[in-house]
Amino acid sequence: MEVGFLGLGIMGKAMAANLLRHGFRVTVWNRTLAKCQELAALGATVGETPASVVSKCRYTIAMLSDPSAALSVVFDKDGVLEQIGSGKGYVDMSTVDAATSTKISEAVKQKGGAFLEAPVSGSKKPAEDGQLVILAAGDKPLYDGMVPAFDVLGKKSFFLGEIGNGAKMKLVVNMIMGSMMNALSEGLCLADKSGLSPQTLLDVLDLGAIANPMFKLKGPTMLQGSYNPAFPLKHQQKDMRLALALGDENAVAMPVSAAANEAFKKARSLGLGDQDFSAVYEVVKGAGGSGSGQA
Amino acid sequence: MEVGFLGLGIMGKAMAANLLRHGFRVTVWNRTLAKCQELAALGATVGETPASVVSKCRYTIAMLSDPSAALSVVFDKDGVLEQIGSGKGYVDMSTVDAATSTKISEAVKQKGGAFLEAPVSGSKKPAEDGQLVILAAGDKPLYDGMVPAFDVLGKKSFFLGEIGNGAKMKLVVNMIMGSMMNALSEGLCLADKSGLSPQTLLDVLDLGAIANPMFKLKGPTMLQGSYNPAFPLKHQQKDMRLALALGDENAVAMPVSAAANEAFKKARSLGLGDQDFSAVYEVVKGAGGSGSGQA
Amino acid sequence: MEVGFLGLGIMGKAMAANLLRHGFRVTVWNRTLAKCQELAALGATVGETPASVVSKCRYTIAMLSDPSAALSVVFDKDGVLEQIGSGKGYVDMSTVDAATSTKISEAVKQKGGAFLEAPVSGSKKPAEDGQLVILAAGDKPLYDGMVPAFDVLGKKSFFLGEIGNGAKMKLVVNMIMGSMMNALSEGLCLADKSGLSPQTLLDVLDLGAIANPMFKLKGPTMLQGSYNPAFPLKHQQKDMRLALALGDENAVAMPVSAAANEAFKKARSLGLGDQDFSAVYEVVKGAGGSGSGQA
Amino acid sequence: MEVGFLGLGIMGKAMAANLLRHGFRVTVWNRTLAKCQELAALGATVGETPASVVSKCRYTIAMLSDPSAALSVVFDKDGVLEQIGSGKGYVDMSTVDAATSTKISEAVKQKGGAFLEAPVSGSKKPAEDGQLVILAAGDKPLYDGMVPAFDVLGKKSFFLGEIGNGAKMKLVVNMIMGSMMNALSEGLCLADKSGLSPQTLLDVLDLGAIANPMFKLKGPTMLQGSYNPAFPLKHQQKDMRLALALGDENAVAMPVSAAANEAFKKARSLGLGDQDFSAVYEVVKGAGGSGSGQA
Repeated sequence: MEVGFLGLGIMGKAMAANLLRHGFRVTVWNRTLAKCQELAALGATVGETPASVVSKCRYTIAMLSDPSAALSVVFDKDGVLEQIGSGKGYVDMSTVDAATSTKISEAVKQKGGAFLEAPVSGSKKPAEDGQLVILAAGDKPLYDGMVPAFDVLGKKSFFLGEIGNGAKMKLVVNMIMGSMMNALSEGLCLADKSGLSPQTLLDVLDLGAIANPMFKLKGPTMLQGSYNPAFPLKHQQKDMRLALALGDENAVAMPVSAAANEAFKKARSLGLGDQDFSAVYEVVKGAGGSGSGQA
Repeated sequence: MEVGFLGLGIMGKAMAANLLRHGFRVTVWNRTLAKCQELAALGATVGETPASVVSKCRYTIAMLSDPSAALSVVFDKDGVLEQIGSGKGYVDMSTVDAATSTKISEAVKQKGGAFLEAPVSGSKKPAEDGQLVILAAGDKPLYDGMVPAFDVLGKKSFFLGEIGNGAKMKLVVNMIMGSMMNALSEGLCLADKSGLSPQTLLDVLDLGAIANPMFKLKGPTMLQGSYNPAFPLKHQQKDMRLALALGDENAVAMPVSAAANEAFKKARSLGLGDQDFSAVYEVVKGAGGSGSGQA
Repeated sequence: MEVGFLGLGIMGKAMAANLLRHGFRVTVWNRTLAKCQELAALGATVGETPASVVSKCRYTIAMLSDPSAALSVVFDKDGVLEQIGSGKGYVDMSTVDAATSTKISEAVKQKGGAFLEAPVSGSKKPAEDGQLVILAAGDKPLYDGMVPAFDVLGKKSFFLGEIGNGAKMKLVVNMIMGSMMNALSEGLCLADKSGLSPQTLLDVLDLGAIANPMFKLKGPTMLQGSYNPAFPLKHQQKDMRLALALGDENAVAMPVSAAANEAFKKARSLGLGDQDFSAVYEVVKGAGGSGSGQA
Repeated sequence: MEVGFLGLGIMGKAMAANLLRHGFRVTVWNRTLAKCQELAALGATVGETPASVVSKCRYTIAMLSDPSAALSVVFDKDGVLEQIGSGKGYVDMSTVDAATSTKISEAVKQKGGAFLEAPVSGSKKPAEDGQLVILAAGDKPLYDGMVPAFDVLGKKSFFLGEIGNGAKMKLVVNMIMGSMMNALSEGLCLADKSGLSPQTLLDVLDLGAIANPMFKLKGPTMLQGSYNPAFPLKHQQKDMRLALALGDENAVAMPVSAAANEAFKKARSLGLGDQDFSAVYEVVKGAGGSGSGQA
């Protein structure tokens, strides 16, 4: 199977390499062409523009850094739109908002092409290991055609229906995650102030019914007060805001998520927005300390 | 190693059998003696009273159904107190409140004996498999002496310091669990009302960083509206109330847990107190329905 | 002093009549001209179009039902824009969103005119009695020129600075009001369930430090379960949503308002959106009842 | 009418003086007798012990500083119990907990006497002006007999039924007050961070439907960061805790009050427990500052 691949950042490079390793023929393109050399060494063909990649391949995957890059690759000169059309599919695996996704979808469909949004959950390591979780939505036949590629890239892919559902599913998951992070923070703080060892609490949690990878990974660094931003707090708060807005639209009252959201907002007001989202622990612990107030 | 074992309910029987299987000599006692026969068939000696068991064994474990049974076995005629004394240890593994635990501890110590509270997390299956988590607190030398038995009964035991800390640790864990159950309920409801499949949400959750046994176990039954009480909602709410009270004592603000607690209270007001604690999902979903209002 | 007056609905008619009673010369216009006759009987001149009113008067006030009417009167053929210009002022006292206000402001200023947004707090009765509270923002000299008219229309007017601040001030006030309505609802419910008379609670409240007109007005109708919509619940919830969004923008955590907002959302999900905002009491009381679920 | 009066603190002195001014014959007693002289100068008779006052008077009022003083005056040597009996009434107007009230009630009734708990709302100034609000509960005939005195002491008295209801009513009122104080704090903070003047917000609030004496009194001092403890924050939080516990008992979910309670707890954790309860504004404003963390 032949696929095009646009965008060779940390994620994109790992994913394209994975496809090559599994015998796919891959034509890659990246804004700074240097990054293509590594993939060429693994057997990839290098395309000169997004348009030329699409022209060559029936399926083209994009993995770009943000909505503006995602739009640019499609709508700019030499972009995807110039060559997309009937019989061709475009799969955007970037994490973008619903409006961006919808705009690309409409443009591609107007040209007669098929479109799939397919944001992933998982970061660098799962991308390298083909262990991503793929939340696809849009054109079902295109999804079916992509299954062999998705099987290589992820441990599991879902087809979620109409465009926008991939983004929504991520919001719901992240909302639950944000409430859980607050629950853990409150528990650690209560343990500490009640004369129990927070580390022992982590050990006990890890043996029980609510053991989960996030508690295991973040718990120890939280106790150290170390918040290297794997997922920046301001993004977590943005996702909770959007999830609550989705709830507002559909008249779903979510008081626990709302309380968690306020804690993340408090964290932002203390200057912790660029820290890891686990830094909400600082809000629960207390005044935020003198240091964090300046962050 | 020889141990006494008081109380052969579902949990106690499994635990005593486990000890026998691992070569311990066990003297058992139960209020209704018939239950002792099964253990005798596995090699146990049968004691006639709690006092006689304590008289015979250096270490005696109790696993009783509630605080009143725990007190009765110690303070009644032919009870533990009559024979406990210097050189002997008494280990209460029942789940009781701090006051009960403290009362027993003081009486045992006054007689010169050593005491350990050691509530467990885990139910019938983990008890049979020796996979309990043991939260011990009280006399450290007694804990050290019990380690061989704890190694058989549980996958892990913790020594948590002074009497009361075992109960406190359980409260903190259950408080986190209660917030997580609310987070899951809100997420399932948001998915449903936003046009996503709640079942797919469960599948996605199970593949990611917040995957945990509770979501996996309870999620599907919640979607069926089935709430067979593995852990009754009113007990979950009581534990959240006590955890929040512990936070109040120590000036720890816990807004997410407080919001979760109010949802459990609302569930109680809808007559769901005797259902499983996952029935809080009904509160999040809506008005509670006409049926549940009469429950 | 001569003023133009556009829009003779319930509020506008009362305000224009007030101005006439106090010796102002008033030129009125209304989309359905019949409504102008009543005012003409009180001495008003009738204008044929918004443009002709503006052409005749140095100051023109508008009091329209919603953003779309507010825009139409300005931008449509024969609208305000055709005659506004240097030396003339336009004062929109309608309750509109910030975007509408900004759009009108920019168009008027581009023509050389001066603009003031001046939403009011108070409904029919205060409008008749000249007891409105006027929250003005925009052009300061225009505000100064309007003071004689504002003194007749309101018991107090405020100049709040730049365009948008009038709307923001209303949001903040309504947010506080929404939390207070929840506080009252929870108190009434707690009294009732604890064996106290909710009516007596209202009597006690009315004698103390937190006595306020809203509790006095709404309390008794809430106890009757009567929610004739003076201020529809869905509008209250919209204002809380917007106030929380304003807080989000400025990193202000507001957990009590957030909890109140979720209660209003729950009320919407029970079908109470078109009832008075005091119907949030139904959410606090319980399952929403069979009746309200269909409302 | 003749009444006894035990306790001449700030409140008691004002109340006894009031009764004298209105023609009551009053026999006073105070632990430090010096305080009786002032009242004697106004025409009071001085009693030597609580017992002697009760012996002399059909009705005896007590206004003491706390539960321990309230108990001491009744149960100690020469206390109320020694002379109370059939045909005599004892009215405790101190603010005490339900347990204290119940204990006194039972002892008085066992002696054949009648008892009324009658806590007041209002402080020094209303006490001097006879403008207290009296929340009486217990013996109805005694209440009826006390009406002439209550009419002098308060602007209004309520008979609330069984012993304990006076205390409960105060809890409900204070819970609403605590939520309102949070609502105000959030509003002031939102105004400030959104470019509006918090002082103007207070002015606007004072003209509208939610204007109330507390906002008027506390608002300006909050903006100054001045928190002289008229009502200490730790007492406000204690009342919210007790009100929430009352709600727990009766299965009343109160998410807004619960959120407000957590804010007061956070204030306690920042060392603001001995400041006025309006100091919760510091929690809403932000990190609590370096100073308040040490307070």
